[in-house]
Amino acid sequence: MAARNILFVMADQLRFDFLGCTGHPTIRTPTIDALARRGVRFANTFVQGAVCGPSRASFYTGRYVMSHGATYNNYPHRADEWGLGDYMRPLGLRTALAGKTHMKPDLAGLQRLGLDPAAGPGLLAAELGFEPWDRDDGLQRLAPYVPDTQYEAYLRSRGYQGVNLWHEAANSVRREDSADNSGWLMRNAVFPTVAAEEDSETAYMTRRAMDFIMAAGDTPWCLHLSYIKPHWPYVAPDPYHRKYARTDVLPGNRGEGEGEAHPVVDAFRQHPESIEFRRDECRDTVIPAYMGLIEQIDDHLARMIDFLDRRGLLDDTVIVFTSDHGDYLGDHGLGEKELYFEEALRIPLIVTDPSPEADVSRGMVVEDMVEAIDLIPTLIELMGGEPAWQRLEGRSLAPYIRGHGPDGWRDAVFAEHDYSLRHARLTLGLEPGETRSWMVRTPRWKYVHHARFRPELYDLASDPLEQQDLGGDSGHASVCDDMELRLMQWMSERKSRVGQTDDIIRNSTGKAWERGYRFGIW
Amino acid sequence: MAARNILFVMADQLRFDFLGCTGHPTIRTPTIDALARRGVRFANTFVQGAVCGPSRASFYTGRYVMSHGATYNNYPHRADEWGLGDYMRPLGLRTALAGKTHMKPDLAGLQRLGLDPAAGPGLLAAELGFEPWDRDDGLQRLAPYVPDTQYEAYLRSRGYQGVNLWHEAANSVRREDSADNSGWLMRNAVFPTVAAEEDSETAYMTRRAMDFIMAAGDTPWCLHLSYIKPHWPYVAPDPYHRKYARTDVLPGNRGEGEGEAHPVVDAFRQHPESIEFRRDECRDTVIPAYMGLIEQIDDHLARMIDFLDRRGLLDDTVIVFTSDHGDYLGDHGLGEKELYFEEALRIPLIVTDPSPEADVSRGMVVEDMVEAIDLIPTLIELMGGEPAWQRLEGRSLAPYIRGHGPDGWRDAVFAEHDYSLRHARLTLGLEPGETRSWMVRTPRWKYVHHARFRPELYDLASDPLEQQDLGGDSGHASVCDDMELRLMQWMSERKSRVGQTDDIIRNSTGKAWERGYRFGIW
Repeated sequence: MAARNILFVMADQLRFDFLGCTGHPTIRTPTIDALARRGVRFANTFVQGAVCGPSRASFYTGRYVMSHGATYNNYPHRADEWGLGDYMRPLGLRTALAGKTHMKPDLAGLQRLGLDPAAGPGLLAAELGFEPWDRDDGLQRLAPYVPDTQYEAYLRSRGYQGVNLWHEAANSVRREDSADNSGWLMRNAVFPTVAAEEDSETAYMTRRAMDFIMAAGDTPWCLHLSYIKPHWPYVAPDPYHRKYARTDVLPGNRGEGEGEAHPVVDAFRQHPESIEFRRDECRDTVIPAYMGLIEQIDDHLARMIDFLDRRGLLDDTVIVFTSDHGDYLGDHGLGEKELYFEEALRIPLIVTDPSPEADVSRGMVVEDMVEAIDLIPTLIELMGGEPAWQRLEGRSLAPYIRGHGPDGWRDAVFAEHDYSLRHARLTLGLEPGETRSWMVRTPRWKYVHHARFRPELYDLASDPLEQQDLGGDSGHASVCDDMELRLMQWMSERKSRVGQTDDIIRNSTGKAWERGYRFGIW
Repeated sequence: MAARNILFVMADQLRFDFLGCTGHPTIRTPTIDALARRGVRFANTFVQGAVCGPSRASFYTGRYVMSHGATYNNYPHRADEWGLGDYMRPLGLRTALAGKTHMKPDLAGLQRLGLDPAAGPGLLAAELGFEPWDRDDGLQRLAPYVPDTQYEAYLRSRGYQGVNLWHEAANSVRREDSADNSGWLMRNAVFPTVAAEEDSETAYMTRRAMDFIMAAGDTPWCLHLSYIKPHWPYVAPDPYHRKYARTDVLPGNRGEGEGEAHPVVDAFRQHPESIEFRRDECRDTVIPAYMGLIEQIDDHLARMIDFLDRRGLLDDTVIVFTSDHGDYLGDHGLGEKELYFEEALRIPLIVTDPSPEADVSRGMVVEDMVEAIDLIPTLIELMGGEPAWQRLEGRSLAPYIRGHGPDGWRDAVFAEHDYSLRHARLTLGLEPGETRSWMVRTPRWKYVHHARFRPELYDLASDPLEQQDLGGDSGHASVCDDMELRLMQWMSERKSRVGQTDDIIRNSTGKAWERGYRFGIW
């Protein structure tokens, strides 16, 4: 049977190397590993920006960050950016969201168009094309707290007491010895959450995804099941808080002392999360909880797959498993994400297509470089549609999934960063318009152009851990020049000409006279 | 009295050097010259693209072509591109159009948002923010002809007979000796149009502009009076067809034979209009009619100014006079416009501000380089508003008009070209995605980056007529490198982050903890 539904699963802040199938020696992710055996795993997949908001906007629009413009968390996306749902709905798929998107609409833009962000086309535009079945971005809302999620109401119905139940139940811990039980405190990562496992964010959202699938009935669907974890607060419910120990923590990638520190990297190393994560005690406390949260997701995916199987949906549902970016966890002397090191930029990506045409590729591992923006054209093609190339900037992975790969492939991937909202901007004394950077990564080189500083350059062949920044080295000037030209070429190719298709152009070129414009005749 | 209205007059395809005040020795434009004496003339003003559609989209949005994406005529603009009216209306100015914009909305984008392009906010979005008081893009509509303008109905009411009255009355000529009387034929430029002067496009649209001003009553207004002429068909009504003669035709800028021809320039030289305009007979026939059409506009502007004066509006109305691009008229071996030579790229720009604060600048000529996108921020500031810098990419000229100039000014201007729809694309064997180019012009150099060809480079100091293309000269490689870096820097600064203001960023930077996101604490 050909696929008719899509389950698009995203974990948040999950590093590429924290799965069994991607090589972690002790983590237990049998369900995700089985998906990889049934489908195709893209081993070199990169996000377009290593921050939730811009990365997701690229996933959901199929466009680079420069093109969609949502360059940081809560930087609004334009009212007329097309999202995944806008492409899936015309193919007959009801497209909904269970979980996080971190997207915020441009309210002034919607108002100018007379659109209501809470209803009708305005709502879909505000949600970047998703029907918000159960949207929950996680995170405590802006202080003061205003409960506004279905999950919050659920926790209350379960009898949890407090003001902000997201924080006090799901993201605080049970410890008798201290009143400081907030999950924000990383030292609390060894304790279980106040909320029981069945009431955790991961468990709740998995059930809500099942609710949607049942509600969809016979209508084909595309569901974005978007987990908030293992994103911080790094606290897991019992028993996942005690599944892993210090012995599961691998040595860090400590390159922070070597070579001349780039000013922007250095400014990020001064952030509190970087300072803490450079301490072994912090890593040894947090990473086991981080791993427990990943195993928990794997267990719930097992339930979801069983659910699909029992309802006869497993054989007609494409399953995607990925993440929006990684987490430094102390590597490079950094905490959190952002910048461009592999630990933040590289993500897992597995696509499992039940269609018979995909039998040729089951269990395949693709080493070619893939970008997050490739997902939308891939899904459109798997569902039999024609990608809107006047807007979409990625490439379809369908030839890898249903064949033996495309004829020719990209030799570089691109990403961007805008740290205008981070303390690093103040450290560096920059204006909000001066905080952007752009990366090109080839199989050999990673190059970063900074608006106000010298570039970064890493030789991935001789220095795969990116511990030696060659961007200030005059011996690599010609490599830098070449990379700069690639960035310039790439920038010049961004798709702002979104209203005109190449087909229209091909059919109209040089035909002005036929349309009655008879200029140039003596 | 402070200005409260804006009359924004644009001529179409009017070269910078075809006015008395810009140095043409014989053309008679006393009204425009008087505007320059009352206001400020910006002597080095450049469009963002030397084609109607993209240039106008930049004028109307205040953004570079890369940013608004309407890269050629009838390439649709996005539903959420803000236009002049979107900035003027909140300042209390009823903002309307009388004449041409050449804009086409992205209908699929409007449909996705549930908007009707013929009514309400959808109409304003479709018209790029203008209330279409009397829209008329000129030009015969797509064959077969479908009459759809108020001007067409007007001509019919005046008793003209025919199917396509735009063509048969306004743009065909009276000659007894031949049935080939179409204004499209350049040899007919010596004859007067079938339509009488009072029924010509210029006369009609001037009256329609007056109608709007009367209808606006006491409401402040911003009216875009957008003349179709002196754009082709190059035919003028009696007596303007006979106001100028071959003796008024200045020698052409014949640089086409010198140096190595750039492949893109060469492809444009093969277009029929270029071939014809290289013949003196064509120039000597067309240019006098072109000059007559300009004098006609000047005469109607005199009527408009008299009208404003009689209604007491002259002292509270800012008047802008400009053009959307030039016309080669045979210079550089080219007809029409496009590419980047000064004859196409440079335009007249005069801003006359009646406010007492502008008394300091009356009659001033500004030599600094100005861009078309500077107009919107200028008008916003003259009307007391605050430009939306998260979208607007130009700079306000108000400091020149109401002071002694700004502190520091740009040292380069930028433009783009997309010839995907032109025959040159076929000549060069390119795909629609390969036909773009970008220009940076400093006071000294003009440099053009072509997607698939070597660059163009002109030394404006030693070669102000741009007859010597140095882009293939290895002796200028370092200049080219420097210009390439400027283009890259400029591309990286395009404003796609349209939903977020710098003020919001400044007030929020480094304050995640205050909002409740307490990550990074041990």
